[in-house]
Amino acid sequence: MVAEIISVGTELLLGQITDTHAPTMARILAECGISCRHRSTVGDNLDRLVETLKTALQRSDVIVTIGGLGPTTDDLTRDAIALALDDTLELVPEIEAKLRHFFESRGYSYVESNSRQAMKPTCADTIPNPNGTAPGLVCRKDNKTVFALPGPKGEFDPMAYDSVKPMLETLGGGDTIHSRTLRIIGVGESHVEAILADMMNQENPTVAPYAQTGEVHLRLTAKAKTAAEAEAIIAPTEAKIKRLLGNAVYGVNLETLEDSIINLLIQKGETVSTAESMTGGGIGERLTSVPGSSKAYKGGFVTYTPEAKMSMLDLSPELISGHGPVSIQVAEAMSQAVRQKLNTTYGIAIVGNAGPTSDIDGKPVGLVIVSISGPHGTTSDTSNFRGIREDIRKRGEQTALRLLRGQVLESE
Amino acid sequence: MVAEIISVGTELLLGQITDTHAPTMARILAECGISCRHRSTVGDNLDRLVETLKTALQRSDVIVTIGGLGPTTDDLTRDAIALALDDTLELVPEIEAKLRHFFESRGYSYVESNSRQAMKPTCADTIPNPNGTAPGLVCRKDNKTVFALPGPKGEFDPMAYDSVKPMLETLGGGDTIHSRTLRIIGVGESHVEAILADMMNQENPTVAPYAQTGEVHLRLTAKAKTAAEAEAIIAPTEAKIKRLLGNAVYGVNLETLEDSIINLLIQKGETVSTAESMTGGGIGERLTSVPGSSKAYKGGFVTYTPEAKMSMLDLSPELISGHGPVSIQVAEAMSQAVRQKLNTTYGIAIVGNAGPTSDIDGKPVGLVIVSISGPHGTTSDTSNFRGIREDIRKRGEQTALRLLRGQVLESE
Repeated sequence: MVAEIISVGTELLLGQITDTHAPTMARILAECGISCRHRSTVGDNLDRLVETLKTALQRSDVIVTIGGLGPTTDDLTRDAIALALDDTLELVPEIEAKLRHFFESRGYSYVESNSRQAMKPTCADTIPNPNGTAPGLVCRKDNKTVFALPGPKGEFDPMAYDSVKPMLETLGGGDTIHSRTLRIIGVGESHVEAILADMMNQENPTVAPYAQTGEVHLRLTAKAKTAAEAEAIIAPTEAKIKRLLGNAVYGVNLETLEDSIINLLIQKGETVSTAESMTGGGIGERLTSVPGSSKAYKGGFVTYTPEAKMSMLDLSPELISGHGPVSIQVAEAMSQAVRQKLNTTYGIAIVGNAGPTSDIDGKPVGLVIVSISGPHGTTSDTSNFRGIREDIRKRGEQTALRLLRGQVLESE
Repeated sequence: MVAEIISVGTELLLGQITDTHAPTMARILAECGISCRHRSTVGDNLDRLVETLKTALQRSDVIVTIGGLGPTTDDLTRDAIALALDDTLELVPEIEAKLRHFFESRGYSYVESNSRQAMKPTCADTIPNPNGTAPGLVCRKDNKTVFALPGPKGEFDPMAYDSVKPMLETLGGGDTIHSRTLRIIGVGESHVEAILADMMNQENPTVAPYAQTGEVHLRLTAKAKTAAEAEAIIAPTEAKIKRLLGNAVYGVNLETLEDSIINLLIQKGETVSTAESMTGGGIGERLTSVPGSSKAYKGGFVTYTPEAKMSMLDLSPELISGHGPVSIQVAEAMSQAVRQKLNTTYGIAIVGNAGPTSDIDGKPVGLVIVSISGPHGTTSDTSNFRGIREDIRKRGEQTALRLLRGQVLESE
């Protein structure tokens, strides 16, 4: 059973909006055990929409269109499906009556173009849309099934999950395609692949690495009758990967690095505080994104300027002017000061130059120094990152969290 | 001149990530006056990628592929382009040498698979990638141009804007489709549409509203010979919108709320500091994301726990236990304390319960209190947001920044 998704709308081709519905539908297809092999996007153009549907009908069993079901003349999905299926459109009087009632009960005059929303290919059933005016469609012809869903999010999401997903489950025939993501830090993508070389071409589960900012995600995908069976198929491969990569695997699925750290700290009864210069609060923001983080994260200082480093963390003017604000000495003094002030197991500090200009006492853009102060003393780590300001800040956060996790893991 | 975009990656077909690069490339194509007629997404499968490229070569002049240029065996874009163009791959020794140097200078051993990134179709030129290991490609054959860009955001964005856009401008050679985005805060999408009702159906420029978290973006799009001409076409509509919406329009194009605030503060010679509870450093992170923000942002305290509020901001235990940590009284005491401690024009404080459980002395999930202390006293604002933890925190940040902007705008 092979499926594809067609998103309809000129605004998508102009890049004016980001398509978040297609990923939603892709996840639903996977959960129903249906392989989504293609996604296409076309504008509000009848010829190209018909051509795209025809190509899809040749290579896929299930087609899901998103958008183009509204009342205006550039809403062409209904017409295109009818043409591609060699069918005609007919009016559904009950739906037209509902539309009239909808507008009149709200005191609006009825614009005749709304009746376009009451049309359907003769082979189609309509799908109720409790959250909008245009019903969805499910068209069945020649062993192909074409679903048409409306574009507005408040209409698309409920229709996709409540009405279309049950029909797709039936079509999928019971199988599910289930993935599990292992999240890896401190080992680059090509190294992960080299270490796991003999798994890269295996089937059920497949193993695929994806580079993220400062980490690598490994996706393990299995096909089975149920999610639980798929997890059982994935388990031995997962165990082998964890054996080979050790502590570099910090989390699973949606578990973030900050989740992993907060959980570890709570388990060990340890605490942390932050002193952030370059990242401006980003490390605190990430640690506190974890529900219940107040048990482990005790607070932080955002000391973005030399003055703040002096007034808030009591650093001496001589230290800062002597070594410069982006220096190992300043980072270590900050991590020690915040640890002491907030009386935590660990103090993290980060300084650096995220750019765009090399205006911090001549230190190069991309230089980032992280220091961690803990029960066994103070360490620091120097990196030179490439990329834009946002990237350098994110990689700095990532490094600080990675090093903190390392220390928490080693502690007894 | 007709173009299409091909996004490559099984993770896209599984809905595991949302494709934000294709919209970026779509906007760039529009700005270069090149009509993007199709977007396709295919998985890491050589046959389907080649087939998709061949279809694209039949109907389009320019093809831009995104992703699949990494070092691993499921990075197949290079191979697929060579096959679709009936070309072969060759090694570029200088790029391989650079790759070796990159890894060895960082103390990593060189994994041979990295050399895949030094391969290119013989008809291709490489596009430098200062932010990553895989160069981009521009392949020219039979009057068709195929660009291949890497998937990681920190590599894609700079290559798309700095290297590919100038080449596309040359290819476009004529009209430009130019957009300008007005960024609006404090007025909801349906209100924006009601206020601007008579502009919603106009042509050249078209006006389209898009809801974002805590703000609305209005996109004005015009077609003309040059960007400057398009801007001139857009200008009267923009002026009318600004007259109708007033200060609610805070920025244009990529200007963020934090950009607008930092610029206003610098203009007025004013400064700000933050005391964050619920957002854990997120407001500081946003303010310091602006280059040069140290002129206006003087630092902050992340006081996530009652203890931190007492030890870092000298709040009295009675105040906190009497009113609870999520209270107007605590928020106002925090904003006053941080303003005084860091000697800034404004002090912002935020407290709230972002959930998921109502564990903060019984205050409901979604309750957020922002206080701003300034030259004319201390004010506070109470909101009740719905949504998940992440949403509530983002809306809290957004409210704090909106209120701060209001105060800075009013100051003399």
